Amino acid sequence: MSLLAPIERIGRDPRTGGYRRFAWNDADMELREWFAGEAAARGMAYEEDGNGNQVAWWEPDAGTRGDALLLGSHLDSVPDGGAYDGPLGVVSAFAALDRLRADGFSPSRPIAVACFADEEGARFGVACAGSRLAAGTLDPDHALALKDRDGLTLAEVLRSRARDLRTVGRSAWLDRVGAFVELHVEQGRALVHSGDAVGVATAIWPHGRWRLDFEGRADHAGTTPMADRRDPMPAYAATVVAATRRAYEEGARATFGRVTVEPGGANAIPSKVMAWLDARAGDDAVLARMLDGILVDAREAASASRVRVEVAVESSSPAVAFDRDLRERLAHALGAPLLPTGAGHDAGVLSAFVPTAMLFVRNPTGVSHSPEEHADDADCAAGVEALVRTVRELA
Amino acid sequence: MSLLAPIERIGRDPRTGGYRRFAWNDADMELREWFAGEAAARGMAYEEDGNGNQVAWWEPDAGTRGDALLLGSHLDSVPDGGAYDGPLGVVSAFAALDRLRADGFSPSRPIAVACFADEEGARFGVACAGSRLAAGTLDPDHALALKDRDGLTLAEVLRSRARDLRTVGRSAWLDRVGAFVELHVEQGRALVHSGDAVGVATAIWPHGRWRLDFEGRADHAGTTPMADRRDPMPAYAATVVAATRRAYEEGARATFGRVTVEPGGANAIPSKVMAWLDARAGDDAVLARMLDGILVDAREAASASRVRVEVAVESSSPAVAFDRDLRERLAHALGAPLLPTGAGHDAGVLSAFVPTAMLFVRNPTGVSHSPEEHADDADCAAGVEALVRTVRELA
Repeated sequence: MSLLAPIERIGRDPRTGGYRRFAWNDADMELREWFAGEAAARGMAYEEDGNGNQVAWWEPDAGTRGDALLLGSHLDSVPDGGAYDGPLGVVSAFAALDRLRADGFSPSRPIAVACFADEEGARFGVACAGSRLAAGTLDPDHALALKDRDGLTLAEVLRSRARDLRTVGRSAWLDRVGAFVELHVEQGRALVHSGDAVGVATAIWPHGRWRLDFEGRADHAGTTPMADRRDPMPAYAATVVAATRRAYEEGARATFGRVTVEPGGANAIPSKVMAWLDARAGDDAVLARMLDGILVDAREAASASRVRVEVAVESSSPAVAFDRDLRERLAHALGAPLLPTGAGHDAGVLSAFVPTAMLFVRNPTGVSHSPEEHADDADCAAGVEALVRTVRELA
Repeated sequence: MSLLAPIERIGRDPRTGGYRRFAWNDADMELREWFAGEAAARGMAYEEDGNGNQVAWWEPDAGTRGDALLLGSHLDSVPDGGAYDGPLGVVSAFAALDRLRADGFSPSRPIAVACFADEEGARFGVACAGSRLAAGTLDPDHALALKDRDGLTLAEVLRSRARDLRTVGRSAWLDRVGAFVELHVEQGRALVHSGDAVGVATAIWPHGRWRLDFEGRADHAGTTPMADRRDPMPAYAATVVAATRRAYEEGARATFGRVTVEPGGANAIPSKVMAWLDARAGDDAVLARMLDGILVDAREAASASRVRVEVAVESSSPAVAFDRDLRERLAHALGAPLLPTGAGHDAGVLSAFVPTAMLFVRNPTGVSHSPEEHADDADCAAGVEALVRTVRELA
């Protein structure tokens, strides 16, 4: 935790102990200043692109142009997120550079540390928005029209933070990157089982987020007979039950973590239930089959309750296999095991453009996206050491 | 609607067209001023008790003390409520008095018009809070500790509105009341089927509100295998499905109209789902049996998902049969049919203390607790006429 101590208090909810660092909110702005300050303190060249991605460069003119080794992760969080998911990769990258510089190491290629904007998508609903915009896989006009829970668009929010909307989109600095290694706390217990402090990722499961809107008719909870109702809640509930069953059957994952009910009165039948489904599976075919099944279940449940259901894809990411050469080279150099992950990351976005790898740091409980998320200090130190050895190996 | 025109704009959400008149919010305060102004314009003696109930008196010294005929209803709403539920009874009472005074009618007993505070319980979760406090069936200390969605207690809210907390509780003015007649828009279609503009209530179904808290453990939606989860959402969903089935089987009603999910991120397994169950049935035994069954279902579903469920009664009202003499006298005088209702009302609270009756005004769709709630102008006029005849019959 000493690595994370400088940012420990930023965006922490005193009631839950979890973090509320959402794209462009006050906590996020404070973290941006912290990152820029860390770059300045090390004499690194600093830039922020139009998407809010921050990059600090060490020896930007070393070696071949276009061959920089990029480290880093993100600083934003899910609602009530833990301290490690994202920030560990950023602070560990700075710590690794400090060690290398203290050792007198001179890199053969430029080294950069990035903090990607809005990785969690907690505010505008699209995960990895910063890296997707930078890579050109998220349309700037689509992104700028995304709304937060208060109805503010990303465009309005960026303007309120004095950002230039004309620079949103494809980032030139990415062309200077030749490889990306993202260190991240593990979000599972594979390293607990293998007995290693650090592992190397093989792949990211395909995953996506779907919004299901069940629309019925508001009515009085006391006076409306069951048969006369158009209540969207039982249809939503039946869909959750069915999705849970299908996820078990497929060895996949289905989660409804966010639900909004209108009008939301205890004695009013809802007019609308808006639900977000997060679905993931080990391969694209299984995910597609599970999702098709869930949508059939949702439509049947809606029909049985005389309500309508509309489904929209909020984001969808196919399976990502990390660069085979890079991951095996790192696994060998670090003596670390290879493991897959069900979580999406900016590394998954960048892997389509540059050789990319991920390092995972052991998480004793496996719990993530929760204030209970944890990694031992010794394992965090092993993570920094792994990044040091990664840079020595690659640069 | 001409009756309701003076208050039509107060507390209306321009987006939904529904009303958001919650206890002591700005709209509620404006309605309080409107009520006091109506009393003043008619030269009626006006008072507000410590619970926020407003009363306007016509001929307060007529006849025997303790024998006043009380009319009225409430002005607050559920979230996105309709224009009629509550306000129709208040404006119709004033309109009836205007007609009687224009006709030179001289009452043999005091006539009062009441506006009861917080009938819907939309803000603090307890329906009929104003009348229950006035009648002494809701403990003032318990009520003052109730919290709204922002965590404000009723005590804090009352203080912010410059009310005196020492006067919360049993209201002396109720001792001056000998009968209560509440006019209300029908929240069903019984009068559509009978072909009458106005009906007289026989009874209120027993009903109550229970809060079910399903507590699990927040976790990452992508990396946590289904079997390792303690996800409260599937347990909640299974409970909704079971409650809906039981309500059908029992000819009763079960509604989940309000749900809160923590932390509420689309890619986080929830740590907690808080749900409000509104349950009603034709008699006490059926309601108790259905509720017992739902709670068994909830505990089984929680156990299957390795989460905890805690159940708290927020309010519970046994069956109410209105005063037989009064209801039959009014049905005869008005030539109106008798019908039961599944909705709770302040009339249900007061009926334990004074002979009480309710008049219903036809609702063409039966829809209530919704912006679509409606009553035709001609039927509203018939409601005023029914109140005029009620006062002539009883005073």
